This record gives sequence, C-alpha cells and structure tokens, in this order.
Amino acid sequence: MSAGHIDLLIHDVAVWTPDGPVMDGAVAISGGCIHRVGAASDIADWPEPAQRLDGEGMLLLPGMVNTHTHGAMSIFRGAADDLDLDKWLNKHIFPAEARFAGRETVYWGTLLSCAEMLKAGVTTFCDGYFFEDAAAEAANRAGLRAVMGQGIIDFPSPDSPDPSRALETARQFLDRWKDHPKVKASVFCHAPYTCSPETLVKSHALARERNALFQIHLAESPGEAEQIRGRYGLTPGRHLHRLGVLGPGTLAVHCVHLDDEEMDLLASSGTGVSHTPESNMKLASGVAPVPEMLRRGIAVGLGTDGPASNNDQDLFGEMRSAALLHKVHCMDPTVMNASVVLDMATRGGARALGMEGEIGAIAPGLRADLVLVNLDRPHLTPLYNIPSQMVYAASGADVHTVLVDGEILLRNRRFVHLDVEEIMGRVGEIAGKVKEFLVKGS
Amino acid sequence: MSAGHIDLLIHDVAVWTPDGPVMDGAVAISGGCIHRVGAASDIADWPEPAQRLDGEGMLLLPGMVNTHTHGAMSIFRGAADDLDLDKWLNKHIFPAEARFAGRETVYWGTLLSCAEMLKAGVTTFCDGYFFEDAAAEAANRAGLRAVMGQGIIDFPSPDSPDPSRALETARQFLDRWKDHPKVKASVFCHAPYTCSPETLVKSHALARERNALFQIHLAESPGEAEQIRGRYGLTPGRHLHRLGVLGPGTLAVHCVHLDDEEMDLLASSGTGVSHTPESNMKLASGVAPVPEMLRRGIAVGLGTDGPASNNDQDLFGEMRSAALLHKVHCMDPTVMNASVVLDMATRGGARALGMEGEIGAIAPGLRADLVLVNLDRPHLTPLYNIPSQMVYAASGADVHTVLVDGEILLRNRRFVHLDVEEIMGRVGEIAGKVKEFLVKGS
Repeated sequence: MSAGHIDLLIHDVAVWTPDGPVMDGAVAISGGCIHRVGAASDIADWPEPAQRLDGEGMLLLPGMVNTHTHGAMSIFRGAADDLDLDKWLNKHIFPAEARFAGRETVYWGTLLSCAEMLKAGVTTFCDGYFFEDAAAEAANRAGLRAVMGQGIIDFPSPDSPDPSRALETARQFLDRWKDHPKVKASVFCHAPYTCSPETLVKSHALARERNALFQIHLAESPGEAEQIRGRYGLTPGRHLHRLGVLGPGTLAVHCVHLDDEEMDLLASSGTGVSHTPESNMKLASGVAPVPEMLRRGIAVGLGTDGPASNNDQDLFGEMRSAALLHKVHCMDPTVMNASVVLDMATRGGARALGMEGEIGAIAPGLRADLVLVNLDRPHLTPLYNIPSQMVYAASGADVHTVLVDGEILLRNRRFVHLDVEEIMGRVGEIAGKVKEFLVKGS
Repeated sequence: MSAGHIDLLIHDVAVWTPDGPVMDGAVAISGGCIHRVGAASDIADWPEPAQRLDGEGMLLLPGMVNTHTHGAMSIFRGAADDLDLDKWLNKHIFPAEARFAGRETVYWGTLLSCAEMLKAGVTTFCDGYFFEDAAAEAANRAGLRAVMGQGIIDFPSPDSPDPSRALETARQFLDRWKDHPKVKASVFCHAPYTCSPETLVKSHALARERNALFQIHLAESPGEAEQIRGRYGLTPGRHLHRLGVLGPGTLAVHCVHLDDEEMDLLASSGTGVSHTPESNMKLASGVAPVPEMLRRGIAVGLGTDGPASNNDQDLFGEMRSAALLHKVHCMDPTVMNASVVLDMATRGGARALGMEGEIGAIAPGLRADLVLVNLDRPHLTPLYNIPSQMVYAASGADVHTVLVDGEILLRNRRFVHLDVEEIMGRVGEIAGKVKEFLVKGS
C-alpha cells in the first residue's frame, strides 16, 4: 500500500461501488478526491486520517447527478399546474418570467434549488436559464458542482431584450466562469423551434470553441416534431444532425419523440441525453424510448426539470418514476431494473455531461462527491438489495450527509454553510409579488 | 356558539377543509372527534382547551387513507424485484410465505408497516393477509385505524393448510374483533382466479352478515381476464356481478382491465375501488381507467399495495404517481388535477371503505384523524397552492405530527408509543432467515 495523507476517512459504512456493495466498507478522501476504497479489514494499513466520519447504519452512494433543471424557477413552484403546455408557458410562465426574472430573483431562486438538491443528495446539477451568471453565483455560494447554461432564444428574453445580443451575453458568461473548479459555464439553446438554424450553429460553435457543454431541449412534444418538419422538412433529431450540432459535448434534453434513425444518430454522434420522466408525465409530453436508447449505448442521465414543471428536484423520486414508467409503458416488469436506474442517476448522468472521468461513481481518482443515506428507517427495513431499496423505497429525505470535493456541505440534514431560513424568506418575498401578479392577470 | 369541553386545540395552522384552505386556522378536538373548525379570529369564543398544539408553519390535513396493503409483507421488501408477476409470485413470494408467514412474522411485519405508514401520515389502512388476527394485534398496538382482511384462497395457505377451513378462520376472526373502536375486521378473498364462485358467494355472505368489508383483487392483469373468461365465459367484473358480490361494502382492488360496462356495474352497484398506481406500474399490470371511474361517480381511493410489490407505503408518493401516470397515459395534462388526487387519498379512500361519515376530511363530527405537514422546507417553498404542493412536491417525510382519534401517535416525527428500534430489529432478524432461504432456493 502506498503512503499518502488522508484528509477524511468514512468508515463502518456500506459502500456502493461500480462492482457492487462493500457492506462493511471504508472510503479515504485526499485533496478532494476519492483516494482509497476498501473493506473495514483494509484500513489498518492505511495512513492515519486527519478526520473520521462514522457511517454506521448508512450507505455511501456517489452523489446524484441532476442532468436537467432550471433552478431559478423554484420561485414559480406550484404557481400553475395541471395545464396544457401551451397555456402553461404562454399564459403563466412566460408573462411571470418577463415580469420577475432578474439577477436578484434568479440568484435566490437558484440558491433555494441548490438547498433543496443538496438535501436530496444531488452533488452535481446541470442548469439552463436566463441571467445564468446570477445562477452560477448561487451554485458557487452553495458549493455544488454545476454545469450552468446561459439561455439563448430567438425572441426577446428577460436578459436579452434584443435577441441578437444573446450570443454575446453567453460568450461573456463563458469567459467569466472559465477557470472555476466546480462551476462550469455552458450554452443552453432553448429548442429547435425557438432557435433558428443560424443561432444553433453559432451557439454550438461557441460551445465547442470553449469546450463547454451545448444543451438543448429536443423532441419534447408531438407538436414540436410537426412544427420542425413543417419548417425544415426534417424531424427535430435529423434537423440538429444536419446542422452538425449533435456530438460529444451536446446534451439533448427530453428526447421523447424520436424514431429509430434519430436514436441511431444520437448514438453514433456521441450525444448525451437527459431523461426527465416526471416532467414528461406531468406535462403529458409522452414516454421517452429510454430502454431503446440504453440498448444503443447512448449516455442517458436523469433530470428533474425545473421546479415549475415537476415540482421538486429529488432524483430518488425521479429514479422511481423512471423505473415504474417504463415497466408499465413496455408492459414488461423486467425493463429498467433498479441497478440500471441507479446507474443512470449517477454514472449515466456523469457520462451524459461528459464528466465520467471526474464524477458519478465511488472509485479512486474521482472527485469525492458523496452521499450518506440513513438506512435505519422503517421504510428501508429490511435490506435485501441496495439498488431496489434506493429506487423503490428511499427518498431524498433519507439523505443524511453530503460531500462535494470531499467537503461536508450537509451534515445530519443540516447545512454547514447555507442559511436556509434566509433563502426561503427571500424566495417567499418574491413569491408574494408573483402571486399578486398572477391573481391580477387571471 | 355552543359550549363544550375541548381536549386539544390545534392553532395557528393552515387547515385543509372540504371547502378549501383556511390559512390562519384552528381545529378543536373533543372526545376523539373534530369539534370545531375555524379561523384564528374565531377561537376567542371557544372554550379554553385542556391542551394546545401550535401548528405554525404547518398544514393540517385529514389523515391519509391507504385502501390497500399487505402490511406483513414488509419482511419481503425488496427481496425480489424487476420480475414477471408469475415468477415473482411462484418462485419467490409464495415459497417464502409458505416458509415464513406465521403469527410472529405477521405481527412484526405489520407493526413495521404501521410505523412506516404513521411516519408518512397514514391514519387508516386497509389490509389483507393470512394470520390477520396477528396483523390486527399489530394495528391495535400501533394505534392506527384499520380495516383488517382475513385472507381466503382456494388452495393451502400458511394459516389454512386445509382451504375448506378458511371461511371458518375468517368467521372466528370477525367474531374476535367485532367491537373494537378502531380495528375493523374484514374478509379478503384473494381474487376471482384463486377463489371459486362458491367461496366468493359464501365469503361475501359472511361479510354482509357481519357488516364487514368484503375485499377482492379484481382485473389486475390482462391474463386474469382471459383466464376468467375461459372458465366462466365472462370477464372478471361481470363474473363478480353475476355472483352478486359487488355492491356497497365491497372493495375491488386494482381494477386495471375493466371495460365500460364493467365500470358501469361497479358504479351502479356502489362498489368501492382501490387504485394502486405504483404497484400496477412496477408489475407492468397496466393503467387503471381511473378518470373514467371518477366520471362515473365510483368511490376510488388510493392504495400502496404491499411493500413487497411497491416497495414503500407512502401515499404522498402514490398521489404523485397517480397524477403523473394518468396525465401521460391520457396525453392530457389537465386530467387528475392535484385537488382530485388529494381528495382520492383522503375522502375518496374513506368512501371506498364505506367510512365517509367517520373519516377522510376535516369537518366537525368526524374522527380527529389528522396530519400536520411541515411546510417550512426548501422543496415546499414558496407556497402557491396547497394540493399542488402536497401532490407534486411533498413526501411522507414532511409529515411532522399524526393524530388518530385525537391522540398524538407521532410528534415531531418521533413515535409516542412505539419502540421502532425494537420493531426494526425483530424484522431484521426474520429477514436474515428469509435471505438465507432465498439464497439457497435460487
């Protein structure tokens, strides 16, 4: 065994590794990375750690990767539900955003989402919104690992009243965050039906030039496919392929209405996919062909979507919904088994974001983004099978402690750095004004 | 205002009443019943209460009604997932039950489920299993309101090796629990495909004679309909109707594969329905036509099903799954809105069990089965709409305090009477043996 300093030793814990569980295990953290993973019997040979964390009765999971959200939209959580997508967007969300989306609201809304996600075991999230610089400040304040996408859309938006300036806003955003250790800047083109071919090509070129993730909503609703075919003579997936914006470094979100050939294009190009089952169910978008995408080797991660459409950001719930939805949709209880789904929420998400060498599993050399789940609960008793328990019985509320880069951000469900009362208070104030506005408008 | 003694006043709380929310409300409890419901401004005129409970930052909901579970099966939670129904039952569940289901295991398994349900805000549950007398003891020990169904099936079962004795076992069970204030005995015929017409008719007659609920799994899988049509020349719903076992006092569970006429039969007969969306999804049984049943005025409640098939007993999760599933299935985001679903988990469940004059809402005269939900959480901030928040963002883990018959059973998520560590320990011991058995058998 090599020597080397250990900053933190998590011991007497069940560890979920890529090779399965180590029931009486230990993990050593050094310099923000996972240094060693072993059994209790191994640690006598390891260097004395600077600190210890007792994991008795708990399970150590890799931090969850939320591949799609609009964190700032927590300010609209539950403001307009059970509506048609068109009505929801045009009568409620867009007018409220036009009136309320600003640096201040985006900062507090995103910070609230960061608090929510941390409490549910999310250590990395991928976001897209306007005023993304303020959202990135919030992610930085919370200490989460994040991929933050500056929104680009071909009509006047809250941060770019002149849409021709949107690309320049994104460029400045990428410059500002280019060297941050945990917050990566990204470009988020809203969708093929709201961004012209020229906008898509230029935005994608900018993302590639800066080695930033290019995000786009793709094939969310049946209407989108019709619209794109009407305009460009091609389905949305083929349209993006022809424009050359698929490929590694591109994340396609939703992917509900894709045919076989479009899935082949995603697979052969190396495009990542964010699967958002609860949002797709709630907005009645449809059921994404996830088992078929996985069979093609596409990197599929899970996403909650924004809290105005889901309405929470708990990837445990999203895992359950994914597993259950595809079984009943395929009328086959063996598809999307618990291991596959747990993998999708961790390693799959890392791959979809192009971060598989960095996060997504408990293995030496990866960043120490870790979650301790308290197994000592009635609904998690007895324990036969870890993935089953996590997917079918656990929830984000079973998360006990969360580390990002080896730093404890949540301990025994309490925030180490964040003043969550202040955050909830600030969002509550904003929501009070939103409520007045919506009541007047309705 | 009439005088009268108040045992407990819950004050400074948002109250969810059948007429909508009273944001700054109060509820007075007397003799185990809801005595008064009002606004903060009303309580100056009410008699001085013996005790007070401050509900600041919380929402008072009627206790959730879980219309279908097999509580004892918590001992098999997660032991066999992602399998075909046939394989699941015949290769795993039935052999494990034959080996392990006994008074002792049923008692501890059901008690664990009671603990789980209490922590998730369930105040009434409807159960069906073998050795139901031991399960009823557990419900009684936990203090929950319960409808406990003694299982009847036409082949040797753990508690009736001679199936011809099953009806007598049920009769004795009904006699033993006939005067209990909270635990009602019931008869649970497994299904039309495992009980002969004679068994169904006799069991139903026994239930009617004792004014007990007659429960039966109905039309769970496509295969069942085929089988029953093959044997009796009728679909399962028509078969039960011809036998005369539908009607008030009958609860039909699952009801996935029903045609229009069968739904009309349920409606016209006054049969209640338990809808179990997560179980139906996980076992790939199909999607029950719930919006159509509700349109016909059928009393539909929500059920979790047993923890071997779901794998938890959290009705908040079940509400969300119900709302999301039917939207995507109907491709209509407006069906099963949050109010309808919250109603199904409370009043609908009470109606389905024939207990609408007793439980299911916060209204004077009903039993004081109440749940305080902590709203002061990141994922429940801000608050625009109570049903939306409960259905789309809350989980059982947000339950703070639970009362049954006006008695506090859970306070700040701690059990007042139950030793949950002991319960989890006992179930853990049993599960250790089950694990050995399953490993040997596989």
